[in-house]
Amino acid sequence: MGTIHVMPVEIGFKHCDPAGIVFYPRYVEILNDTVEHWLRHGLGTGFATLHGERRIAIPIVNLQVDFIAPSRLGEDLACALRIDGVGRTSLKITIELRRAGHDEPVRLRAALVLVFVDMHTMRPIEVPEDVRRAIETGGY
Amino acid sequence: MGTIHVMPVEIGFKHCDPAGIVFYPRYVEILNDTVEHWLRHGLGTGFATLHGERRIAIPIVNLQVDFIAPSRLGEDLACALRIDGVGRTSLKITIELRRAGHDEPVRLRAALVLVFVDMHTMRPIEVPEDVRRAIETGGY
Amino acid sequence: MGTIHVMPVEIGFKHCDPAGIVFYPRYVEILNDTVEHWLRHGLGTGFATLHGERRIAIPIVNLQVDFIAPSRLGEDLACALRIDGVGRTSLKITIELRRAGHDEPVRLRAALVLVFVDMHTMRPIEVPEDVRRAIETGGY
Amino acid sequence: MGTIHVMPVEIGFKHCDPAGIVFYPRYVEILNDTVEHWLRHGLGTGFATLHGERRIAIPIVNLQVDFIAPSRLGEDLACALRIDGVGRTSLKITIELRRAGHDEPVRLRAALVLVFVDMHTMRPIEVPEDVRRAIETGGY
Repeated sequence: MGTIHVMPVEIGFKHCDPAGIVFYPRYVEILNDTVEHWLRHGLGTGFATLHGERRIAIPIVNLQVDFIAPSRLGEDLACALRIDGVGRTSLKITIELRRAGHDEPVRLRAALVLVFVDMHTMRPIEVPEDVRRAIETGGY
Repeated sequence: MGTIHVMPVEIGFKHCDPAGIVFYPRYVEILNDTVEHWLRHGLGTGFATLHGERRIAIPIVNLQVDFIAPSRLGEDLACALRIDGVGRTSLKITIELRRAGHDEPVRLRAALVLVFVDMHTMRPIEVPEDVRRAIETGGY
Repeated sequence: MGTIHVMPVEIGFKHCDPAGIVFYPRYVEILNDTVEHWLRHGLGTGFATLHGERRIAIPIVNLQVDFIAPSRLGEDLACALRIDGVGRTSLKITIELRRAGHDEPVRLRAALVLVFVDMHTMRPIEVPEDVRRAIETGGY
Repeated sequence: MGTIHVMPVEIGFKHCDPAGIVFYPRYVEILNDTVEHWLRHGLGTGFATLHGERRIAIPIVNLQVDFIAPSRLGEDLACALRIDGVGRTSLKITIELRRAGHDEPVRLRAALVLVFVDMHTMRPIEVPEDVRRAIETGGY
């Protein structure tokens, strides 16, 4: 499966450290934002609905990030998400950040494993059927 | 002067605390984002240009915030900025946050005083002429 | 009442912006940390107990901050909290930040109004008797 | 080499999400804090000195995190850092988070690769001799 969702982000003061480049915990916040943005605007199933009404959480169990090149204050990045696998209870997601509108190498590449969890029992549950269907048949 | 710029924001996990409402330091980050968004997309003078090329910073000297009603995960807010005064070296800004697309009372009202500073000397400088003109003649 | 609690903080990368000084939303996070630290280590009533077991929240309703002088990466600050008033349902708190171990002027002065709220009804409740007593008779 | 530095952290409101557990980008901020704390209090070479005077930065190039069990508001964690390798220009670091004072499994395990960089040229430099010596001969 290729890229299925892109979230734009403008690098601002809140992202940058005294070296004038993005502070890496802020990149990880951007990774989480990309997943939320996809759930809401790509899948049409917001974290709020999953979390608030359906009592389903999607905690991360593994995160791997290659920080390839720095990003600076004022740059526009494109955060491209693709699904690399749908397991029984989990999703494998890759997110790549590039400078928007520039033909430049990837700045950052991340692999995330998320698990669907029932918030009452805090135990893994199967990937909800509507989420699985939206991913597999491609609402894309 | 009335509202001159509006920034939308979606309330996500990163903004919310265990009570499920926006954690107030995150609101203050949103206030700063609103000012940056106005400088970049309203005035057309990004923080990056002021900061990186022109070596001008705009630190805050006074902040007053009324937290009127809470905001929750998944809500869309509109952050409306207006200029309440242009001094010799400073700006007075008011920002109001409302739920977007809902006829509801203001959630949060903030007053900020920002001062223009030369980053070499760290002393106040006069509001740059292009910024003053853009505000007063209304590129709006 | 004088200062009743001091929280130390080391200014790190996470607090600082590209100008090398503390980014103001991070200061507001430090203000909140100071209140939590006082509740836990001063009063002996942690946010976790109030929040988790007693279902009491203490949202902020008004915040006023004077940013007097900047703080830099690597500095040690002392965050001094005092109670300026105990109302029926609210507390008035002042927090001053100074450079620790240096005879320098205040860097930042903040006034916060916090209200005690029942998390079930989300309505104000009277300041809990044990909190009021601990403040007034002075575990201090 | 075994654990060479431990930083304590109290889980507060700023770390937690609406599920009442630590939001994972905040864990990554804690990982960075642990490295800064070691540089300052373990090695005795603060980020501020490296960064401000010696113009050396230590950006991360690879991060791998296993999120094993959640942490909750009010818990005390111990963040244990060990050095797993010193290369020509890089350090491999492992950080494990456990609940302090409890005989419980690891909550989170992270591996970080950091590279020493000259801030003028932004190119890798050899691990500074004083840092290498402090690690290898064991100020520990």
